[in-house]
Amino acid sequence: MTTGHVFIATSLDGYIARKDHTIDWLESQGTTIEEHGYTQFIDSVDGIIFGRKTYEVVFNLTSGEWPYTKPVIVLSRTLTQSDIPLHLNDKVTVTNQRPVDLLKTVDQQGWKRAYIDGGTTIQSFLSEGLIQNLIITTLPVLIGEGIPLFGKTSEDIHLELISSQQFPSGLLQSHYRVLYSEN
Amino acid sequence: MTTGHVFIATSLDGYIARKDHTIDWLESQGTTIEEHGYTQFIDSVDGIIFGRKTYEVVFNLTSGEWPYTKPVIVLSRTLTQSDIPLHLNDKVTVTNQRPVDLLKTVDQQGWKRAYIDGGTTIQSFLSEGLIQNLIITTLPVLIGEGIPLFGKTSEDIHLELISSQQFPSGLLQSHYRVLYSEN
Repeated sequence: MTTGHVFIATSLDGYIARKDHTIDWLESQGTTIEEHGYTQFIDSVDGIIFGRKTYEVVFNLTSGEWPYTKPVIVLSRTLTQSDIPLHLNDKVTVTNQRPVDLLKTVDQQGWKRAYIDGGTTIQSFLSEGLIQNLIITTLPVLIGEGIPLFGKTSEDIHLELISSQQFPSGLLQSHYRVLYSEN
Repeated sequence: MTTGHVFIATSLDGYIARKDHTIDWLESQGTTIEEHGYTQFIDSVDGIIFGRKTYEVVFNLTSGEWPYTKPVIVLSRTLTQSDIPLHLNDKVTVTNQRPVDLLKTVDQQGWKRAYIDGGTTIQSFLSEGLIQNLIITTLPVLIGEGIPLFGKTSEDIHLELISSQQFPSGLLQSHYRVLYSEN
């Protein structure tokens, strides 16, 4: 089945955005002048899956200048396809499928690797054993509160540290593989 | 004045202990067979400062077999010196001083470097600009909930990544210097 992959930046205290979804603290870190492997990562996936909130943030941030060339699937229980602007209709699909069912669906469409993004979406895919690995880029800043990358889990989730890399700007990128139990 | 230093292990989701203060998830990671620099760190400090909860955890864990040879100061608004068992009376001092006042006190006693430990204590010293650097050892496990290393801050706290090191067991140790603003 299609595998889930995470590529995300967090503050040292584990937030992916402030409570109001802003990422000014991320942009102020000189992250734009370094290459942190995003291009290589995005080239390696067949499509992107995130929730309604991430969709709205991306849409508003880019003022309709959609940043993705790969297909995007938005998980939502409230949005429908008719909420997507016409010019994005061939790029963005809305679904209310559960994570495992959605991966089965995109598997049938030929996706081998899905980019899973957004705190809530990452957490639900992780809990259901659907994330194969995570590339986490930690910024050297404490923002105190915000939207956390990780959330509650029904049990401990063990991972394997594959590699880590320190960038001149002070970013620390770590690559983890998720070790799910067999039961 | 005496500088504050942190040396601590966290889960990948940023917890230093479970809610009940247990650290079984830490002990199961083969951390005891590797040298992660603790000996060198503890040799570099003149004493240790932590809160009542950490004191109780350490005391109960070790059944009175006190693990520290350096002086320990316990920050508490409820404990007094008479709560400390007699055999620890020359090793453990209870105080209700505020962090900055306490560092002035130990400075007068000749401390150059203080080991600041425990979530609440670390957070209050960080907020008051009293931590010089942190050595954080991240374990490759998500425990879902617990006692967080970091807490709310009145403003962003910027740090500098000094170095990072990956251990064979999968632990990732990162060394940060805190960059406080001048105001």
